Amino acid sequence: MSAPHAFMSPLAPGSVIGILGGGQLGRMLALAAARLGFRTHIYSDETESCAFNVATAATRADYGNEDALGKFAAACDVVTFEFENVPDSTALYLADHVAVAPSPRALHLSQDRFLEKSFVAGLGIATAQFRNVATGADAADAFRALGGPAVLKTRKLGYDGKGQKIVRSADEASDAFSEIGGVPSILEKFVDFDFEASVVAARARDGSFAAYDPPKNEHENHILRRSIVPAPLSPDSVANAIGIARTIAEALDYVGVLGVELFVCKDGTITVNEIAPRVHNSGHWTLEGCAVSQFEQHIRAVAGWPLGDPTRHSDAVMENLIGAEVEDWRRLAAERAALHIYGKRVVRPGRKMGHLTRITPRSG
Amino acid sequence: MSAPHAFMSPLAPGSVIGILGGGQLGRMLALAAARLGFRTHIYSDETESCAFNVATAATRADYGNEDALGKFAAACDVVTFEFENVPDSTALYLADHVAVAPSPRALHLSQDRFLEKSFVAGLGIATAQFRNVATGADAADAFRALGGPAVLKTRKLGYDGKGQKIVRSADEASDAFSEIGGVPSILEKFVDFDFEASVVAARARDGSFAAYDPPKNEHENHILRRSIVPAPLSPDSVANAIGIARTIAEALDYVGVLGVELFVCKDGTITVNEIAPRVHNSGHWTLEGCAVSQFEQHIRAVAGWPLGDPTRHSDAVMENLIGAEVEDWRRLAAERAALHIYGKRVVRPGRKMGHLTRITPRSG
Repeated sequence: MSAPHAFMSPLAPGSVIGILGGGQLGRMLALAAARLGFRTHIYSDETESCAFNVATAATRADYGNEDALGKFAAACDVVTFEFENVPDSTALYLADHVAVAPSPRALHLSQDRFLEKSFVAGLGIATAQFRNVATGADAADAFRALGGPAVLKTRKLGYDGKGQKIVRSADEASDAFSEIGGVPSILEKFVDFDFEASVVAARARDGSFAAYDPPKNEHENHILRRSIVPAPLSPDSVANAIGIARTIAEALDYVGVLGVELFVCKDGTITVNEIAPRVHNSGHWTLEGCAVSQFEQHIRAVAGWPLGDPTRHSDAVMENLIGAEVEDWRRLAAERAALHIYGKRVVRPGRKMGHLTRITPRSG
Repeated sequence: MSAPHAFMSPLAPGSVIGILGGGQLGRMLALAAARLGFRTHIYSDETESCAFNVATAATRADYGNEDALGKFAAACDVVTFEFENVPDSTALYLADHVAVAPSPRALHLSQDRFLEKSFVAGLGIATAQFRNVATGADAADAFRALGGPAVLKTRKLGYDGKGQKIVRSADEASDAFSEIGGVPSILEKFVDFDFEASVVAARARDGSFAAYDPPKNEHENHILRRSIVPAPLSPDSVANAIGIARTIAEALDYVGVLGVELFVCKDGTITVNEIAPRVHNSGHWTLEGCAVSQFEQHIRAVAGWPLGDPTRHSDAVMENLIGAEVEDWRRLAAERAALHIYGKRVVRPGRKMGHLTRITPRSG
């Protein structure tokens, strides 16, 4: 089985990489593509996308606008995505007209928590215990089957903690289903983890695979606050975590960078929380910690190039600048750190406005 | 004395950095500016400038077009340069309308080898012995005064070995003057150096100064082939070299990154060859070797920001891709190295088309 518009030979410099989505991930992908001599074309439904400023070309149109999508596809040599909630119909339409990576299937799976967890569990990889929830009664039944505490999550369209509720009884589970809108959901038994970690890895068109060292991730209000690399993981746990990401990437015949969010328990057990079929916030440290960043790695993969060297040359701590924190740029600019500001015009609470990475000599 | 359009407070993210010149240096400056949340506006007299593709805005106009320059100045919060051969009149016109860094004076000096060498020698810094040459007879006289071998160079507009001739007698000096066009020239006594090195350093608006570790530079056909860092220099020689760059920067009240090209003799003597009032090819390794590259450092300086950390975290070897070498991108992409391709559409012999940096753990 091969996609109708797959290509076999690497794209030459000067080729156009299309990117769906105009946020900071699209922006950093465009900057990385430029290093390699590629031109970029951003497609976004937002008028003021911060990626527009650094791209060679930009299209502002809805994701359902087939006329605009068709012109975009014709203008690009390959199309990729900076966010996973691209409508299925958009991804499939594009895939009929131009090479698309990663595949619409990876997007489709990661858009639905039930499909995603079923897929991961089906590979023999540990996840939280989970049940599909279609009704309030399902939610209560699921709680009784799994025990608590548990988390009720919408199957689709949640991020940064939106569309989630912790529940501690069957009644709470049933109520929570109404509160999150009575939409198709999943109940997950709470994982009593020690800390969160992630693997950011890449798979190339030829099947080769490269993973960055996994960071420990700290969240505040369900938003990533900081990533610290190296994480306090044994070499065996690192190998295990990277092996999980590889198994997932191979099962999806994945092309590009993916992020696999993990729970690490005190006994060393590793459980998959979520898959992000794109560059990942917890991989931003690679811009300063590695010769080839996650953004360049993704561009290399989707362009059919060999993967770059993911070796970590330095330890790193990456901190997000969230909401109004970016207004402190005068002080941040004076820190011994690499500062990234995404050029978003409007500051909103919880909005990722930039990040800061501090590197120190590699500890091991 | 302060420039009419100098500003004292740092430019906020979202401000527009104007860059005169649209080559690879302008391109990499624009990419670095984007990291910090700045927008960029490239002004170039070439239709296909490779920096246009990554900038927020672009103006294609002659450097003498005051209408276009006026609009450019009005659109920018500060203007800088990616090449030193900006006409005086252009630099002065802009400086009347917008903050300009580095100052037109630094450009003016570095455009004329006689003024530049006189300035450096006037600071008590060693240069090659030199004489001003206005006629063929001057050239012969200068040769007799200095001894040979010597190099006759046009005072203005030479680079990568253009407008230069080695001479070994007074007659050859006189003939060479005609051969290079009978234009105002300078005769320099040949320096019997062991190797070439350079200091890439930055000075901020507040006078603070930061230098990168000096690389050893290897040239082929008068074009930089590779830069190797660290250079085989003693700690005293490194301090001496950096001190020279600092003395020059302070004497010019310089704001921005400058490159100071040096000859290193077997006895450790260091002689200044040339000043480049801009980011420098021998500083490209800082993109992978440091958390803050020379390009970001320049943007920080001209935007009135504090300088970033110039610490070298890794050893590095940077190699230029010259002319058709870039056509080998398939092989180069597979190397364990960071590849940069500048996106120039036309390959010409001697044209810098990209570069490749290999990093290894810091040796000392």
